[in-house]
Amino acid sequence: MHKFTHYRLCPHSRSVRLTLAELGIEVSQAEERPWEWRNSFLALNPAGDLPVLELAGGPILCGAYATLEYLAEERRWSSPQGRGLALMPNNTEDRAEVRRLVDWFGRKLDREATREALIEKVYGREQHQGHTPEVATMRAIRSNLRYHLSYLSYLADQRKWLAGDDFSIADLVAAAHFSVLDYLGEVAWEDYPVAKGWYARLKSRPSFRSLLADRIPGTPPPLHYTDLDF
Amino acid sequence: MHKFTHYRLCPHSRSVRLTLAELGIEVSQAEERPWEWRNSFLALNPAGDLPVLELAGGPILCGAYATLEYLAEERRWSSPQGRGLALMPNNTEDRAEVRRLVDWFGRKLDREATREALIEKVYGREQHQGHTPEVATMRAIRSNLRYHLSYLSYLADQRKWLAGDDFSIADLVAAAHFSVLDYLGEVAWEDYPVAKGWYARLKSRPSFRSLLADRIPGTPPPLHYTDLDF
Repeated sequence: MHKFTHYRLCPHSRSVRLTLAELGIEVSQAEERPWEWRNSFLALNPAGDLPVLELAGGPILCGAYATLEYLAEERRWSSPQGRGLALMPNNTEDRAEVRRLVDWFGRKLDREATREALIEKVYGREQHQGHTPEVATMRAIRSNLRYHLSYLSYLADQRKWLAGDDFSIADLVAAAHFSVLDYLGEVAWEDYPVAKGWYARLKSRPSFRSLLADRIPGTPPPLHYTDLDF
Repeated sequence: MHKFTHYRLCPHSRSVRLTLAELGIEVSQAEERPWEWRNSFLALNPAGDLPVLELAGGPILCGAYATLEYLAEERRWSSPQGRGLALMPNNTEDRAEVRRLVDWFGRKLDREATREALIEKVYGREQHQGHTPEVATMRAIRSNLRYHLSYLSYLADQRKWLAGDDFSIADLVAAAHFSVLDYLGEVAWEDYPVAKGWYARLKSRPSFRSLLADRIPGTPPPLHYTDLDF
């Protein structure tokens, strides 16, 4: 069986978890705490990044970029008219739009909000007892997040799915990041009803179930986290 | 003609510039100062990231990820047996390895060294007269850089090109980042002779010429920057 190494609140891990679930690919899971930098994990992925997907009889895929592209390619090639879901559109120009948005939510939103929020609210405390989030940093994250929620609202208002008429990995990557921020209680959904509508649709997909069941000891999610009608 | 918006010392811009030159694609260039966040630039790319490639009669490509993937795909499809250079290998597994390394040098090295070095040594000064680089930050960058140079040496020692037997965009992305760090005088090449050998091969390619001609007023490169036998 394929082996998937991840951390439950890592947004990059979550984007691949969602994708695996959407594609119906079963994996055995191992959890890695990203702040520990264990040598045996660095031997597996010297970049130290999560997630890592070890395919049975196949390559070891490191990081969300290489893994998502691989899963999208394999899927498209093995069943072009297949069981349904294409994670990437068929033409180059549409794929560029999907990738622009994967880059937006997977890198820009990560740098400006998700990553920092995790460090302040989870990783920091795991590393140093008594750590409390830096007020100025949290304020900057919340301010950045408003810009991202506005852009998400714009996309969700103009299009059926974030990258256009078709569901794509852009939706999965964005949903993975917002799911982490939502777990941390940082998303003011009530101010962004259109973005909330898009997220509610994502949250209702069966692929989301395992994410909604995640818990971090000592850091419970807000009540609405698991609520499909939040 | 295609229009390319970039900043001369931006490593992401440089990775696309190198790729365009390798492919023989001519573009008209416009320079954007990334620390200015001009509204007209944000209208072109709301992410505010460089570079942007506006293809004549084609899509607007934003950011290195979407642009490099697009160029690699178009090239492969339009001339499969074509004029030579393939930026991506033909099989999925090899492409995953190229992408792992593009991610390593384009994201991890950027976050741990290139981006911070540019902020400390160039962007900071452009924004605030009298700005001087933070000593602790520069020390962290140099320490991180040693790890990256070790990994680059390992790859260059084990393989003909970074991702395997064939030249790929992994080489171009890594070279773009190291060219910026080299311009800033931050690369201790003498301690990493194998990495240096790889960089010398890259530097000798015609696609590199325009990068070596770049200058930032007030921040001259070290003497060896343009020297092909450095």
